[in-house]
Amino acid sequence: MDIPRYMQDLGRQARAASRLMAAASSEAKNTALRTIAAKIRARREDLLAANARDLEQARTDGLAPAMLDRLTLTAKSIESMAAGLEQIATLPDPVGEITNVKRRPSGIQVGHMRVPLGVIGIIYEARPNVTADAAGLCLKSGNAAILRGGKEALLCNQAIAACVREGLEEAGLPATGVQVVETTDRAAVGELITMPQFVDVIVPRGGKGLIERISRDARVPVIKHLDGNCHVYLDDEADAAKALPIVENSKTQRYGTCNTAESLLVARSRAAELLPVMGAMLAGKGVEMRGCPESLAILAEAAIPAQFLKTATEADWSEEYLAPIIAVKIVTGLDEAIAHINHYSSMHTDSIVTENYTKAMRFLREVDSASVMVNASTRFADGFEYGLGAEIGISTDKIHARGPVGLEGLTSQKWIVFGNGEVRK
Amino acid sequence: MDIPRYMQDLGRQARAASRLMAAASSEAKNTALRTIAAKIRARREDLLAANARDLEQARTDGLAPAMLDRLTLTAKSIESMAAGLEQIATLPDPVGEITNVKRRPSGIQVGHMRVPLGVIGIIYEARPNVTADAAGLCLKSGNAAILRGGKEALLCNQAIAACVREGLEEAGLPATGVQVVETTDRAAVGELITMPQFVDVIVPRGGKGLIERISRDARVPVIKHLDGNCHVYLDDEADAAKALPIVENSKTQRYGTCNTAESLLVARSRAAELLPVMGAMLAGKGVEMRGCPESLAILAEAAIPAQFLKTATEADWSEEYLAPIIAVKIVTGLDEAIAHINHYSSMHTDSIVTENYTKAMRFLREVDSASVMVNASTRFADGFEYGLGAEIGISTDKIHARGPVGLEGLTSQKWIVFGNGEVRK
Repeated sequence: MDIPRYMQDLGRQARAASRLMAAASSEAKNTALRTIAAKIRARREDLLAANARDLEQARTDGLAPAMLDRLTLTAKSIESMAAGLEQIATLPDPVGEITNVKRRPSGIQVGHMRVPLGVIGIIYEARPNVTADAAGLCLKSGNAAILRGGKEALLCNQAIAACVREGLEEAGLPATGVQVVETTDRAAVGELITMPQFVDVIVPRGGKGLIERISRDARVPVIKHLDGNCHVYLDDEADAAKALPIVENSKTQRYGTCNTAESLLVARSRAAELLPVMGAMLAGKGVEMRGCPESLAILAEAAIPAQFLKTATEADWSEEYLAPIIAVKIVTGLDEAIAHINHYSSMHTDSIVTENYTKAMRFLREVDSASVMVNASTRFADGFEYGLGAEIGISTDKIHARGPVGLEGLTSQKWIVFGNGEVRK
Repeated sequence: MDIPRYMQDLGRQARAASRLMAAASSEAKNTALRTIAAKIRARREDLLAANARDLEQARTDGLAPAMLDRLTLTAKSIESMAAGLEQIATLPDPVGEITNVKRRPSGIQVGHMRVPLGVIGIIYEARPNVTADAAGLCLKSGNAAILRGGKEALLCNQAIAACVREGLEEAGLPATGVQVVETTDRAAVGELITMPQFVDVIVPRGGKGLIERISRDARVPVIKHLDGNCHVYLDDEADAAKALPIVENSKTQRYGTCNTAESLLVARSRAAELLPVMGAMLAGKGVEMRGCPESLAILAEAAIPAQFLKTATEADWSEEYLAPIIAVKIVTGLDEAIAHINHYSSMHTDSIVTENYTKAMRFLREVDSASVMVNASTRFADGFEYGLGAEIGISTDKIHARGPVGLEGLTSQKWIVFGNGEVRK
């Protein structure tokens, strides 16, 4: 197979389709979403069979159990794919929204119109649910999409792609509005990320290694999400009754998510009071604490079992554990907390616990992260919790969309001018 | 000189300064802007002397006359630099603006806060006024800046940089908030665009070759402006009384600007009536028309002198002439006009002349350009005309800022959460 040529063909078709997708009515897009959902439900047995063959091959190839788990479709996960598409159909259509129109002294009226980005390339691992989800989000936001999933999921991705294609066609939209790359050759990714004439933005979803590689080699903008090294800072004026549930929820509700707290900072004036409480809760849940010497002394004094206490190294301040481990550091106060976070954080999500208004506002303003919170769990940094209705990913970039990216993040705003024959003086 | 090390040092200082710039009050930033303006005025003779030495060297090196012209400072251009900074001081401060706060079912309140991008690298040619202008815009938007101007302007850039540095310090801001690269070694540019740890975005200002090179090699996002191939489309339902001034102004007000029209499309049903009028006006101003055969036949029939008529080649539809030349094409109507524009336009600015509401709205929605206009001159695509108060450039990208980029384009929005001890269920 001539990969560059194959990918150029997909790109050309996507670019052509993107014009029709951009002009599509909300009704046509919602019909497509509901039709795709119906087809996915109706073909459950076919999807399970395709997935079984993918799984068989993946086991032969020795895929790791966690990867096999993500690759596996069940009746429940198929229903949730279909329901997800129906949910996207209920969201407001972001395309065409006109805002901020102002009359200028020249007589023209200038404003913004929200428009799709054009063609979106999505690169992800062997998770078939992402195929349906990404297709749905791109479709609803009026974009054309080229989806490149992990090679282990090829057969079930093709089966899902058939549902998408037919759903688009039955709604009067171009079948090439969403295309799945049907080669497992890695060179296809290299082509996809270097066709600025056909692809407007790349959204990689997967591990840090994948995302770093793509960002390095891409010749088009990448909406990317790297680490989530999130902090909770317990300020001198923290309310202890809020501190405990916030630390507990931020760290222990789920260990493997990017909005899980990985570092706990405590103001020195409150360390002797607050650390023993936090330490007892964390140890009770089996969370290892990697502390600065001062915090370790307090925790040991409070009889936190030694098996949960370890001395932090410099590397711990930057670590995204995704595990029952938390770095713990005593700081002099707000200034040191902000400086520490801005130095070590991955600019994902950081939260302060304080009753002091001015310090809360300074933290919000000065911490340079995608989500900055006062008296709330870092676990709230999520498209659904923020009310986006859907999420294509979480961006740790500063350009374009920051933090959870929903339908709006797959659009941009152009300028529109309503004139009446005006010319420039 | 160890260029990588020198640039890393600038980067590290800029990153540190960016924290202080982001937290600076509007008052401090405006004081800095006014102080810099006062210093530039007070040191007029020094600036002229430094510029004279730059010019002498540039003449020896055989710099082209147009470049020498841009390099030259005069009493008037120095005053306009100072006035420009004072004007930036009067603009509203975009930093810290909180918008769109909504209460969620969980109890948290989620919204956006506008924040600086961080460190902005500006790469430009030998135009000393850009040094003052870019410094002012970055400063006002709370960013730190690293400025790399054309080597021919080194001495006057250094003199302007001294004013900026002292102005920052006198206002209590870090002198490293705006740094000018003081080496003419080209390797400095290569370093500047590949330090994502220190630089958040690059804004190149200059010719297409410079911008293409930078976009290709950059490892940080680039806010860039490539061609301006702008169209005016005279629809079947165009008002002839509006068409003539709009075509005249779009094409002939200034030939060298990126928002000048380079292509004229005319609906077939009106060509015999409108083309002779447009042709007479254009020929009267010495504008060469490169037409499709059908339009040339009408223009010749209307006795437009043959010296102004030439057959268009395929390349003409994509050309940014920046000269008294315009491509002319007859199209069947709106659909072909939109398809032609989306195929050949540089996605800068395109305008329709029509009295038909539905066609106007379709043109606004379906033409995929940064600025799309109805019954207005393409020359309005400009930061000042749009009311931005200032302009760092015009973006032809689709991500982040599209079209004229003002202070807001040098910021982004982060999420903020006001909580009261909430945790995620």
